[in-house]
Amino acid sequence: MSERFKVHRAEEIAAQLGVSRSAVSRAFNPDSYLKPEKRTQILKKAKELGYQPNMAARAMASNRSHLIAVVLHALRQPWESQEVDVLISELQAIGFATLIYKIPSYEIQLDHISHLKAYNPDGIIVYTDNLPTADVTSLFGRARPIFPVFASADTDTPNPETESTASFDHILIDQRPGIRHAIRLLAGSGCKTVAWLGGPESTQSNRDRKKIVMQSAEKYGLSVTTHIQGDFTYERAHEEVRAHFRTHPMVDAIFAANDVSAFGAIDSLRYDFNRRVPEDVKVVGFDNIRQCNWQSYNLTTVGMDVDERVRSLIRLIRNRLKSPQAPAMFERIETKLIVRGTVE
Amino acid sequence: MSERFKVHRAEEIAAQLGVSRSAVSRAFNPDSYLKPEKRTQILKKAKELGYQPNMAARAMASNRSHLIAVVLHALRQPWESQEVDVLISELQAIGFATLIYKIPSYEIQLDHISHLKAYNPDGIIVYTDNLPTADVTSLFGRARPIFPVFASADTDTPNPETESTASFDHILIDQRPGIRHAIRLLAGSGCKTVAWLGGPESTQSNRDRKKIVMQSAEKYGLSVTTHIQGDFTYERAHEEVRAHFRTHPMVDAIFAANDVSAFGAIDSLRYDFNRRVPEDVKVVGFDNIRQCNWQSYNLTTVGMDVDERVRSLIRLIRNRLKSPQAPAMFERIETKLIVRGTVE
Repeated sequence: MSERFKVHRAEEIAAQLGVSRSAVSRAFNPDSYLKPEKRTQILKKAKELGYQPNMAARAMASNRSHLIAVVLHALRQPWESQEVDVLISELQAIGFATLIYKIPSYEIQLDHISHLKAYNPDGIIVYTDNLPTADVTSLFGRARPIFPVFASADTDTPNPETESTASFDHILIDQRPGIRHAIRLLAGSGCKTVAWLGGPESTQSNRDRKKIVMQSAEKYGLSVTTHIQGDFTYERAHEEVRAHFRTHPMVDAIFAANDVSAFGAIDSLRYDFNRRVPEDVKVVGFDNIRQCNWQSYNLTTVGMDVDERVRSLIRLIRNRLKSPQAPAMFERIETKLIVRGTVE
Repeated sequence: MSERFKVHRAEEIAAQLGVSRSAVSRAFNPDSYLKPEKRTQILKKAKELGYQPNMAARAMASNRSHLIAVVLHALRQPWESQEVDVLISELQAIGFATLIYKIPSYEIQLDHISHLKAYNPDGIIVYTDNLPTADVTSLFGRARPIFPVFASADTDTPNPETESTASFDHILIDQRPGIRHAIRLLAGSGCKTVAWLGGPESTQSNRDRKKIVMQSAEKYGLSVTTHIQGDFTYERAHEEVRAHFRTHPMVDAIFAANDVSAFGAIDSLRYDFNRRVPEDVKVVGFDNIRQCNWQSYNLTTVGMDVDERVRSLIRLIRNRLKSPQAPAMFERIETKLIVRGTVE
């Protein structure tokens, strides 16, 4: 191993800079207070000397593992992989490595994740629905799980803009603004009949999304009479839209529960029925994955800013680590409509 | 916490089944020998009793962390996310959790990953080029890194079908069969001039891929006079193909270094130049990501079976854990051509 990777002792850094040994330790711990210029100076010197704090020893001393566990159903879908990509970078920037754990369905069961406890994560981000949140919390103890939650149409909080009644740490994603804007745009472009192309009925976010679409459609005079059952995959959406349009050729718009389903719908309309999007049928998706910019789709969609969402997750993790006993924390994010070429 | 998650002692399982305490331990360790029916019986009883072995204690006793580190440049690209998705599932199936670590470029530097050492991974899979392999190996000590390596056109092993001279554990991916088949198909469909749409020149796999394309083209009488510089992204490919075709309208095929670049090329041909694929210009990609099946692209591509590749990685990890001192191990995989709609 070359000289630059030799581990120098923290004492040497302290001595060379005339700072305390404790300041050197704190410089490597993003949650410890240190004047920014002092931290920069110490980290620079540490890099120069090739110093790496021993994480295992630190973990033992601090009861911190410097691991964040991310629990999700699959990573192969664009939405998940694009979110997790940003999340890993941001976690690394504050000194955490990311453990990814897959569960076999969109619904989480405690025994899917109970053995994650053995890795002693400092935090857990759970991308699933049907949350036995109290059980998850008591299972992990020290590490409080964080859930991204999609707010439903009829949230029962007195002031849903600023409050949340949930008893767990979460990101409250308000699906309403983006969906309402999309429905208004469809109504304004002359649509009468919208088909809802849904995701798995077992997921709360999908059920809420559908409810908001229905309510908004009613408000703007659109009729959502047809429900096409998808499962968030391109293949299923393609197949179901093909089956559906044979018998229901009058639909003039499709609102899909995610972007990938919208792509499947567009391709079936084009290649099975020779319909043009948006001239003959308009299509709206949900998520705003990068593939929406691919010109063959150029999809108008409801989405959020991934960087903003990840910054919120990072804030929750850091705040929870600083205040283990504080009441449930949350951050709020709004969806918005991203207009591309599949509506007007 | 509900009763079913209470941790029962391993002794209880042993007593109830009339097996030894050691058999119970071995049942949870995929590398320990145990008769399959006995293992099944013990795991079933353990599940019934809600027993979870304490992984931290096991790790201390065995010097195993039950963590595999995966190092890559980005996870948001389809190839990486689809591979890692399968890998995580297969690792979980044999009792390992997956730590994902991002490095800032396709080229790996030791100090990008040196602090991963603190997590004491049992194995490391490195998806990058420009490998200071000896340094990586001596940095991690116990955990030998595994590299997926794309064999170059002029591999200097005496018998490249069965041998490899590399001094590190690796998967030898033979790029040649699939690329040669693709070039033969292009020649057979009447192409004369192929443009190479490359990835970053700093990556070895891209340089080798290009070399094999050039050599195969010469063999089958095609001319590859134009090189378009991409970076494995859709956006860059789209932009470069648009710039290129303004001045070189005579190219009748594009061979792209990855599928996502091929999609960018197809969209520029269609929407900037009104060219039809494959009637006017033929396009071939590399990777065989799931999006190749999306009907708007329907891409003919060179790829491998992701399940086969992951099975090879899992075999390497298990074999290395069983035989820490054995010489460098490798598995060999061939590419093949997957014919869809963008050539004939």
